[in-house]
Amino acid sequence: MTLLRVVCHQLAPRIGDTHYNRTLTERSIRAAASLNAQVIVLPELVQSGYMFTDLEEAHEASETRDGPTLSLWKSLAQALGIIIVAGFCERLSAGRVANSAALVEPSGRLTVYRKAHLWDREKLIFTAGDAPPPVVDTAVGRIGMMICYDLELPEWVRLAALAEADLLCAPVNWPDGPRPVGERPAEIVRVQANAAVNRMFIAACDRYGEERGVNWVGGSVIVDADGYPLAGAASQPMEQQWVADLPLAQARNKSISDHNHVHRDRRPGLY
Amino acid sequence: MTLLRVVCHQLAPRIGDTHYNRTLTERSIRAAASLNAQVIVLPELVQSGYMFTDLEEAHEASETRDGPTLSLWKSLAQALGIIIVAGFCERLSAGRVANSAALVEPSGRLTVYRKAHLWDREKLIFTAGDAPPPVVDTAVGRIGMMICYDLELPEWVRLAALAEADLLCAPVNWPDGPRPVGERPAEIVRVQANAAVNRMFIAACDRYGEERGVNWVGGSVIVDADGYPLAGAASQPMEQQWVADLPLAQARNKSISDHNHVHRDRRPGLY
Repeated sequence: MTLLRVVCHQLAPRIGDTHYNRTLTERSIRAAASLNAQVIVLPELVQSGYMFTDLEEAHEASETRDGPTLSLWKSLAQALGIIIVAGFCERLSAGRVANSAALVEPSGRLTVYRKAHLWDREKLIFTAGDAPPPVVDTAVGRIGMMICYDLELPEWVRLAALAEADLLCAPVNWPDGPRPVGERPAEIVRVQANAAVNRMFIAACDRYGEERGVNWVGGSVIVDADGYPLAGAASQPMEQQWVADLPLAQARNKSISDHNHVHRDRRPGLY
Repeated sequence: MTLLRVVCHQLAPRIGDTHYNRTLTERSIRAAASLNAQVIVLPELVQSGYMFTDLEEAHEASETRDGPTLSLWKSLAQALGIIIVAGFCERLSAGRVANSAALVEPSGRLTVYRKAHLWDREKLIFTAGDAPPPVVDTAVGRIGMMICYDLELPEWVRLAALAEADLLCAPVNWPDGPRPVGERPAEIVRVQANAAVNRMFIAACDRYGEERGVNWVGGSVIVDADGYPLAGAASQPMEQQWVADLPLAQARNKSISDHNHVHRDRRPGLY
């Protein structure tokens, strides 16, 4: 079975320092390519940092789809033959910004997704997206995309799965919080369940590095179509480069018994 | 905060031996009551056993809502002041049967749910239910009910949560299968995620005891509104009596940040 090599590179961007962040992503993308990875996933808002005070500060760090970071990612994707999925602060019209993710292919095609479910103070800063999570038919498989808190809405994940994503890539910034000793972070548990009920691979790339008093789970994880982790899956808030080889075709087989199919067993008329 | 004491009693019913199974449930219910439990959850089809060869055999083991097992449960609920949630093979009209669960209150009120999402060969035997999971406003809180594979449809769990269940009780029979060493069974992971994304307590009661070549996870679990286990949560296929005291009011607070509410954050127009 053909394997797809995916990297999640857990990084620590610096708030507002877009030059530093751009350099950081270039280093990660080149490192993934040197491992022959076909897909790299980077954190949410890796281009800008996360803990903005207000819209004005976020707008200052934002860029358009032709901006320097996205231009760099496009050139790296083309030069290195790698698909890049990463978060950025997208400059919209009329002074607005979106918490977006880019999927950049070696062909130069760019797909952008705007986070539809905003977390906490993001609601004061970002304009929420209204479009469903895209599923892109790439040369290496069908790749879906969403961002962080979107993953806590199983309906949203289902949309990507019903659109036949084999792999869902999710840039995230998971703020850390208390949990019982010995328990895997609930953020990771939800990723596992989302994968299992859809028989879809999921790669979620978290960040680390305290920012304005907030720390992060550092819980990047790559899970298989049964919902079990292939890489990552613990709170390890430090730089991490997780690599997994995915038998992506397994996501095309939604049968889980002689008589069950995770999608055809749905009864939409009742929901 | 008022605590609700819930017991999941993991048992091994015998296929077709309804007399034995009835006695088994009586022992468990009395044991739970002696611990001052207010709710007891027993496995799926605990009245009949699971691995029926065909409809004829299932029909023979089935009973109506006035049958001997449900009559026993009603009298025990009334005598002991305990709510009983347990699975039974329900005799329908025209020779059909349903994979059902009963919720019996001390008042004598009986609520029956028929499994809507059937697993594997159940599709050859049972008639699927068409009604949503009931949520019953009991004297001790709002209790929802569904059965086993229903839990793998996040849409179905969401219905119970949106109907304001504080606690979802799920009789299950989880057939055992392979999983990576050290990993918690995916069935339990899905229960955790269902609880977390809805901020709802869930008590899932599994069975043990090989039946016609099938073994079971033995993974009964009681999880809190954050999705973390309070009791159970491993594969322990033997008799288990799990007890947890639930701060049920936590399920009434769906806020997870200053600006987030797990249900109001949904965007149904987009799903």
